[in-house]
Amino acid sequence: MSGRPQIVGLGQTEFSRNSGRTELRLALEAILAALVDAGLEAGDIDGLVRYTWDQTGEAALVAALGLERVTYYSEVEYGGVNCCATLAHAAAAIEAGLASCIVIFRSLNARSGVRFGRGERHLQVNGDEGIVTGRELPADEYTAPFGLMAPSQYHALYARRYLAHYGISDDRGAAMLGNVAVTQRDFANNNPRALFHDRPLTMDEYLGARMVASPLRLYDVCLETDGAMAIVVMSAERASRLTRRGVEILAAAQFVHEHSIPMLLYARSLDSLVPERAGADLFGRAGVTPKDINVAEIYDATSILVPLALEDFGFVGRGEAVDLLITGENRLDGRLPINTHGGLLSEGYFHGLNTIGEAVRQLRGESPNQVPDARLAFVTVRGASSAILAAT
Amino acid sequence: MSGRPQIVGLGQTEFSRNSGRTELRLALEAILAALVDAGLEAGDIDGLVRYTWDQTGEAALVAALGLERVTYYSEVEYGGVNCCATLAHAAAAIEAGLASCIVIFRSLNARSGVRFGRGERHLQVNGDEGIVTGRELPADEYTAPFGLMAPSQYHALYARRYLAHYGISDDRGAAMLGNVAVTQRDFANNNPRALFHDRPLTMDEYLGARMVASPLRLYDVCLETDGAMAIVVMSAERASRLTRRGVEILAAAQFVHEHSIPMLLYARSLDSLVPERAGADLFGRAGVTPKDINVAEIYDATSILVPLALEDFGFVGRGEAVDLLITGENRLDGRLPINTHGGLLSEGYFHGLNTIGEAVRQLRGESPNQVPDARLAFVTVRGASSAILAAT
Repeated sequence: MSGRPQIVGLGQTEFSRNSGRTELRLALEAILAALVDAGLEAGDIDGLVRYTWDQTGEAALVAALGLERVTYYSEVEYGGVNCCATLAHAAAAIEAGLASCIVIFRSLNARSGVRFGRGERHLQVNGDEGIVTGRELPADEYTAPFGLMAPSQYHALYARRYLAHYGISDDRGAAMLGNVAVTQRDFANNNPRALFHDRPLTMDEYLGARMVASPLRLYDVCLETDGAMAIVVMSAERASRLTRRGVEILAAAQFVHEHSIPMLLYARSLDSLVPERAGADLFGRAGVTPKDINVAEIYDATSILVPLALEDFGFVGRGEAVDLLITGENRLDGRLPINTHGGLLSEGYFHGLNTIGEAVRQLRGESPNQVPDARLAFVTVRGASSAILAAT
Repeated sequence: MSGRPQIVGLGQTEFSRNSGRTELRLALEAILAALVDAGLEAGDIDGLVRYTWDQTGEAALVAALGLERVTYYSEVEYGGVNCCATLAHAAAAIEAGLASCIVIFRSLNARSGVRFGRGERHLQVNGDEGIVTGRELPADEYTAPFGLMAPSQYHALYARRYLAHYGISDDRGAAMLGNVAVTQRDFANNNPRALFHDRPLTMDEYLGARMVASPLRLYDVCLETDGAMAIVVMSAERASRLTRRGVEILAAAQFVHEHSIPMLLYARSLDSLVPERAGADLFGRAGVTPKDINVAEIYDATSILVPLALEDFGFVGRGEAVDLLITGENRLDGRLPINTHGGLLSEGYFHGLNTIGEAVRQLRGESPNQVPDARLAFVTVRGASSAILAAT
């Protein structure tokens, strides 16, 4: 036991397409559920970490929950790309003594309210919807006029380049990405929480679905869902006094990611938009290697992020993820089970927090698609934030 | 030397009422000036901390400065109330190993652009101006319809309560607040950077100015200025290799503050809206006491925040700040020189970052109103964030 901060509570609402309630209410439901899960009360909370894009602010939570002593609060920019950065912030604050029990949350009506995957939100200042634009993509003016606006379109460029660079045919590319989508749907079909719990997906259906942005098809692109999730992070000392065993944050990292095309000017190679030593640094701080990882939860706004992340962090060599994924090594009986909740493609979308949530469930032995004896989980959002978590 | 992170660079633009340039440009000017001041280059930066309200995002700075490796970025909510929280975040990140050279900045055209002191910004979603509203003040709906909208109005309630609670007459209250305003103007008159460098202020002029929100008069309320400031924070190890001596962050703290009237429901006493043990915790972590402090820089959006902060943090007992301030103990030859740059009332307004900036100058021995042998500085924003800094 290294004594690093631990995740001690997990709570969420249902995934839906229309929650029928405010984002504040969703946030409160998720936070209260996470506290119950941890065996804590609202008065135990002394820190809050949230997404800048979240519309539920500290003051609202302090007022609604009666938090008398919040001594740390932080925000992470962007959407799901920074989900693991919330862990980095919380752990750093706890280690610095700024707080000892921090709630991380994300609450969003991402289907009935703001739809993040749609391009038009970059074309207007969405005052009514509360989204901060204008600073987000400093180079939108170079790309939006040509129709490049939505994440799925950016990701299609990554996918097209990957196929071209490694001489992978479109058919073989579709087999790779399709296996990500179909495998994850299988996981979702066994996960009662998943929005697509009751909707199977075959490879034929995958291949037959419409192209969204070539080579990405409909089922390569994540769900849009309403709901909220909350995670409680605690100092090892306080966590040791709880009944439930915590999940240790061995290391968490944050990077400025490839959020605009001109930033590619600074990329050393188009193979990866993660800083060169990011993987080595993360695994070095955790004191483990990719070979030690039992399960990977990889932010999959689109399916192509899965193979790219595997290569960026050294799970396979460059251009080799296609083999691993085509041969089904991402399944429960494979070399590295990936996105065992169904992922953003098939479980739902809390801007990535459910990616962390599934890692926590695996390390607690509570996943519906449980990896036997899972001790170490890797969580990442390609090019932005990552974490290595350990069972205690 | 405790080895805590240090402030090693300070840069700013001029204070003005109309900068004539974008906030991005102002941010870049301040950051580059801070790097020159520290003897560093842009490539040394691996972290960024900014105000959520800043319109200049990480991606824009990465693109403009060519930052190839940013491994930590954080935001603090609200305006100046969180200025010292930027130090808490940066120091925690450095201590946790997430980054080792972090730039903090605030860039705002707060006179020619968004004017934060005006009430009407709470009445509309300022999409065009990019300000996030709606989540900021969850209770605006209870107060705005009655005309309670601007910070100066809230602060007038604090002042009125203070006078009533301690049986202080309006005349004596005006003598206290007027001495804050006039003393700080004297400092500004000797500070070439101050916007009001060339404008003296007498007590008669103070008393004769119009009432803004009783008992606060015109010169009790801070300036609105355009400009930017940047601060470089570095690990003690990296700082030790620089030519210029750093300023150590002994401790920094953040609290959720009294940002809405209903939150007062949770205050244990109206004497203070700072959590009960906030001062003891801060000074305890720094290992010093209020008596050890040589100079205090207190966020003065209005003058009343100065006496309230002195009492909240134990520099004087409850109700005693009036004596200290009326007798001029806040002057350079007094018991505790306060706001030696002129403060937000008379130097300018970078949402509080210049409050930290003056503390740094004092500890470097570079203030135009230098406190002899200043070794320890206290910086605070009442009820929100605070720091104790030390010369090295």
